[in-house]
Amino acid sequence: MTTSEAVSTATPLGRRWQTTAAKDVVSGWTKSLTEAFGGRELHDAEDFIVFGAGYPDLPSQPLEGLVAATRAALEKDGSSALQYDDKHGNLLLRTWLAERFHSQEGMNLGPENFFLTCGSNQAIQLIPAVFVNPGEGVLLERPTYGGALDVMRANGARLAAVEMDGEGANPASLEQAIQRLAALGATPKLFYTQPSVHNPTGITAPAARREQIAAICDRYRVLILEDDAYGEIWVEGARPPSYFTLTGGHGVLRLSTISKMLATGLRVGWVIGRTDMIDVLRALPAEGNISPLITRMVAEFCISGEQDAHLARVNPMYRDRRDRMLRALEQHCAPYATWTRPDGGFFVWMTLAAGVDSVRLKAAMRREKVEARHGPPYYLDQEDGLHLRLSYALLDIPAIEEGVRRLGRALAASMRS
Amino acid sequence: MTTSEAVSTATPLGRRWQTTAAKDVVSGWTKSLTEAFGGRELHDAEDFIVFGAGYPDLPSQPLEGLVAATRAALEKDGSSALQYDDKHGNLLLRTWLAERFHSQEGMNLGPENFFLTCGSNQAIQLIPAVFVNPGEGVLLERPTYGGALDVMRANGARLAAVEMDGEGANPASLEQAIQRLAALGATPKLFYTQPSVHNPTGITAPAARREQIAAICDRYRVLILEDDAYGEIWVEGARPPSYFTLTGGHGVLRLSTISKMLATGLRVGWVIGRTDMIDVLRALPAEGNISPLITRMVAEFCISGEQDAHLARVNPMYRDRRDRMLRALEQHCAPYATWTRPDGGFFVWMTLAAGVDSVRLKAAMRREKVEARHGPPYYLDQEDGLHLRLSYALLDIPAIEEGVRRLGRALAASMRS
Repeated sequence: MTTSEAVSTATPLGRRWQTTAAKDVVSGWTKSLTEAFGGRELHDAEDFIVFGAGYPDLPSQPLEGLVAATRAALEKDGSSALQYDDKHGNLLLRTWLAERFHSQEGMNLGPENFFLTCGSNQAIQLIPAVFVNPGEGVLLERPTYGGALDVMRANGARLAAVEMDGEGANPASLEQAIQRLAALGATPKLFYTQPSVHNPTGITAPAARREQIAAICDRYRVLILEDDAYGEIWVEGARPPSYFTLTGGHGVLRLSTISKMLATGLRVGWVIGRTDMIDVLRALPAEGNISPLITRMVAEFCISGEQDAHLARVNPMYRDRRDRMLRALEQHCAPYATWTRPDGGFFVWMTLAAGVDSVRLKAAMRREKVEARHGPPYYLDQEDGLHLRLSYALLDIPAIEEGVRRLGRALAASMRS
Repeated sequence: MTTSEAVSTATPLGRRWQTTAAKDVVSGWTKSLTEAFGGRELHDAEDFIVFGAGYPDLPSQPLEGLVAATRAALEKDGSSALQYDDKHGNLLLRTWLAERFHSQEGMNLGPENFFLTCGSNQAIQLIPAVFVNPGEGVLLERPTYGGALDVMRANGARLAAVEMDGEGANPASLEQAIQRLAALGATPKLFYTQPSVHNPTGITAPAARREQIAAICDRYRVLILEDDAYGEIWVEGARPPSYFTLTGGHGVLRLSTISKMLATGLRVGWVIGRTDMIDVLRALPAEGNISPLITRMVAEFCISGEQDAHLARVNPMYRDRRDRMLRALEQHCAPYATWTRPDGGFFVWMTLAAGVDSVRLKAAMRREKVEARHGPPYYLDQEDGLHLRLSYALLDIPAIEEGVRRLGRALAASMRS
């Protein structure tokens, strides 16, 4: 396609521009960002079973509750919902979030400790830019959330990987990575971590592990960016205390979002931080992006009790899906792989046995019409072709069981002879 | 306040961080952005009449229509409204926008020529970063929208002011500014302009003026960033053709938003561009910020005809407010100032007579309990203390007339003897 085909009419006033392509006039920033952020789509034909995205179940969405919340927001508070709201984001929602955090973690916070964002993705885009200069160091778990990886790569920071074990980020690996960055002259500034039901592995770090990690970060004055996106989808025992609680809020920014506990399509997230940290975020011009109507509507949904009722309904459903998936994996995949047993969230992380040929596996999965996320997007460096992320969030039990059966057949067909 | 007061509990795990203030760990980017973006609040006590923000009238908001649109969006299309939508933004809305642009400007565009943003502010933040490298040149009208000025200042570009006259940006001044930038070694890349009912002046450039400006920008290959935020609030005769139409879409990105034609609290804007330009924006990771529910809801509101019906209701109201304000100004302020006569939008721009002491005027306006925006935030460089932006959008007729009466008294009391 020539650039002139892009728009039908050409006029003398646009003559020189007509032969100038967009790619020839973009900034260096755009080039690096676009290269870092490759599209990664899944095969999604009708007859495939896709253990795909980390989105919440759709049929259980509380549509009536959301319509009622919209009505309430507009009728009670049209002026803040339809004009620009408080620069911090809606006060009612921040107050509810502070009370909720107190009831969950026993820590006294006020609305001034919360900053609302367009989902946690906006925070993940914003916070490295706010705290890290180009050339300074950022630490990431290996594997980690691909969206965070893309943003951090594009940001000009030096990145270092922290190995994970069965209890989350490994303290010795963290300390080595910090020292490696420092030796390169890249001041280690930020550690992006998901201590609870980690994406993609589903692993949760126990309290003792968190204390070790927090102590290291405090010693080197590395800011912990604690992403709790999936933490409310919790189905097993008590949740360990957050990094924010463990440190008394010093040196930690905690991210959360309504995306997994309600719907990704709302784009409401929040940062919990010490007030001087939150004040830094507030002072940026980017604050105008979040929709006041949506935040006011979410506030209404939460305050009315609908959000907690919704979680009380969906979490047992996710527990059931997890249990049935684990049972099916045991039945169909045990000879060929191991996998994690998540305490919540949406993902089981599979590690293939050494005898599985990962190239043959891809072809076999296509033949069997089953799809999952493969490892590479979650790795800062080369992945070894040994991992699959299996999301059970969007599938009902028959689809989960049939999908795992297909996966088992594909694995069996992919063993090196 | 010491940093330790910000959160109640301190623990040994946060010991070092406890004595580290946020301002000591932020990046250089944050410092420059925060310094550029100063808070500018208006006195807004109950008994003041405030010719303030550029927000649409509240009592005329179509609350029932918005609730119905939310219901329709959730019931018809819950899956795209509540999960992540199309990367371009909602297809229904983009299709409606393309058809609307065709009916208004006679130009054939498709949904692929539209990119949805969180209000036009997100586009104003994004586009300079996408097309301008640090040290390259950006041109801005003098005066211009303060929000754009803040962002461009923080972006590391070299800025140059283009003088305005009664027909908008002055072509000779534009060409001089382009040459001035080039002489400094700063390649002129972008001209941010509001050709229709400009903020803050209310001036609209006629078609012949637009042709002159577009020819200059094409000659120097300067990308026109055409901001039409207020263009749909049009109350007088025919609208001149857009830069986008005049150039056949080459070398122009056109911004618009639902903020002024419906409500600022929705945060839905759009960029119109050649497909290769739009594809550049689509490829950025920032796309995840706009709310699919809100865009789907706005689509429903627009397609059902409610948006056009709403404009047909409110535009005569704004015309009436403008007319009554102009009449009141003639009556009470004629000896002390001149002002523009806008063809739409929300603002009258006042230029004080040489005899008015602007320091005395501020004090007199406080005494009279009337407030307006003063000139400095709209100027790249020093303003001369001679301008007021008077928004009539949020005030009913009695308030407009009483406010102008107060302003007249304040002006009379501020004449140099």
